[in-house]
Amino acid sequence: MGRNCITEVLKVSPQRIIKVYSSQKSQRDALYAELLKLQIPIKDVSKQELSQLVKSDSHQSYVAVVKEKEQPSLHAFLEESRKKEAGLVLMLDSIFDPQNLGAIIRAGECYGVDLVVFSKNRGADITPVVSKASAGATELVPILKVSNLVETMKAFQHEGFWAVVSELSERAEPLSTFSFPQKTLLVLGSEGKGVQPLISKKSDFHVSIPMLGNIDSLNVSQAAAVFLNSVRTKC
Amino acid sequence: MGRNCITEVLKVSPQRIIKVYSSQKSQRDALYAELLKLQIPIKDVSKQELSQLVKSDSHQSYVAVVKEKEQPSLHAFLEESRKKEAGLVLMLDSIFDPQNLGAIIRAGECYGVDLVVFSKNRGADITPVVSKASAGATELVPILKVSNLVETMKAFQHEGFWAVVSELSERAEPLSTFSFPQKTLLVLGSEGKGVQPLISKKSDFHVSIPMLGNIDSLNVSQAAAVFLNSVRTKC
Repeated sequence: MGRNCITEVLKVSPQRIIKVYSSQKSQRDALYAELLKLQIPIKDVSKQELSQLVKSDSHQSYVAVVKEKEQPSLHAFLEESRKKEAGLVLMLDSIFDPQNLGAIIRAGECYGVDLVVFSKNRGADITPVVSKASAGATELVPILKVSNLVETMKAFQHEGFWAVVSELSERAEPLSTFSFPQKTLLVLGSEGKGVQPLISKKSDFHVSIPMLGNIDSLNVSQAAAVFLNSVRTKC
Repeated sequence: MGRNCITEVLKVSPQRIIKVYSSQKSQRDALYAELLKLQIPIKDVSKQELSQLVKSDSHQSYVAVVKEKEQPSLHAFLEESRKKEAGLVLMLDSIFDPQNLGAIIRAGECYGVDLVVFSKNRGADITPVVSKASAGATELVPILKVSNLVETMKAFQHEGFWAVVSELSERAEPLSTFSFPQKTLLVLGSEGKGVQPLISKKSDFHVSIPMLGNIDSLNVSQAAAVFLNSVRTKC
């Protein structure tokens, strides 16, 4: 749902949009006109019907039915990655807030991550609220949902990725002086608890963002952006 | 409102908390016990009463009445800044989303900005939702609300600050190679429109975060964190 969200998908892969529900009903609206031009079916509905459809009032008069992305397979991804010298994968452990999840995936798209991995069972799933908060990035970035994050991390490590965990702890190195490995699996945990102890234990590096104030951490979506920016600036 | 928010204020300036409304009613709750220990008056109320008080359901059983912070005066701040070699002030132009405003102020606190400036008339004001999203930073960072952002920017420039605007434009320098001035006034605009044209015109530097994907920008609170991290890493 959401105007920007749909506009972004339209720019990159219009063929994925099957149908759009809209309460706009005006060809003078740029998005509406674009949809007509591309001959994407539009179903005119009321604002109330849209809200019911996505269980949210934040649809901005537009909800799209999008062809489901093919889930990349972990096996195929890792096999492909063997041929490459560099790689950046984002692993999310128990991000429950849909706004944060969406914003993190958006940052992943902006910084060109190869894949976002998260757990099937822990944390939020991709809902219309998450898609909107991601500005459409949920439809643009390859996303892999797995049943066991620790096992998945091991599989990445086995294929030459180094697991770098964002962590507030004594042992964590400061981000400002940390050099990211060529193949990085960047792991972010929930705001309250951070990553699971087992994931932290099995990771290769523990890194924290140096803070100068009284509050000990950024919002997790901000931390994600700061980490990704560092990876891209320093590689 | 909010558990973390009140906990942060309690850590740094407990004397500012006049009274706490809570639906917790249990001394086994760490925050409740701490409030009792510090002899801060607690008024036990129902969850519904709390929701009515702050017009939001996100209070996490706690709402505090906090002594209003003294507004710093622009004149006094600038006079004080003359004595210092460095300074970092965050200016916000029309941030309407309360979650974003809160998260930006939180990042400001985390990175130790000296002041946050925003307009009295454009964008969101500090509400309980903003305070909560800021993890209490709204009570910890000096905040100045002004009537005219352009005039205020000029006053900073007159006192040796350089205005650095975050902007997606052809002329913008990439953040990755930009060196921040010792005295920086960092200006961030709204997500949709960026900063007002006059502010952009009168600024000294235009800087953008290089993006690698299809979506052209991060969420504004993420951009704020990335900028602040760069200032602190490079100074």
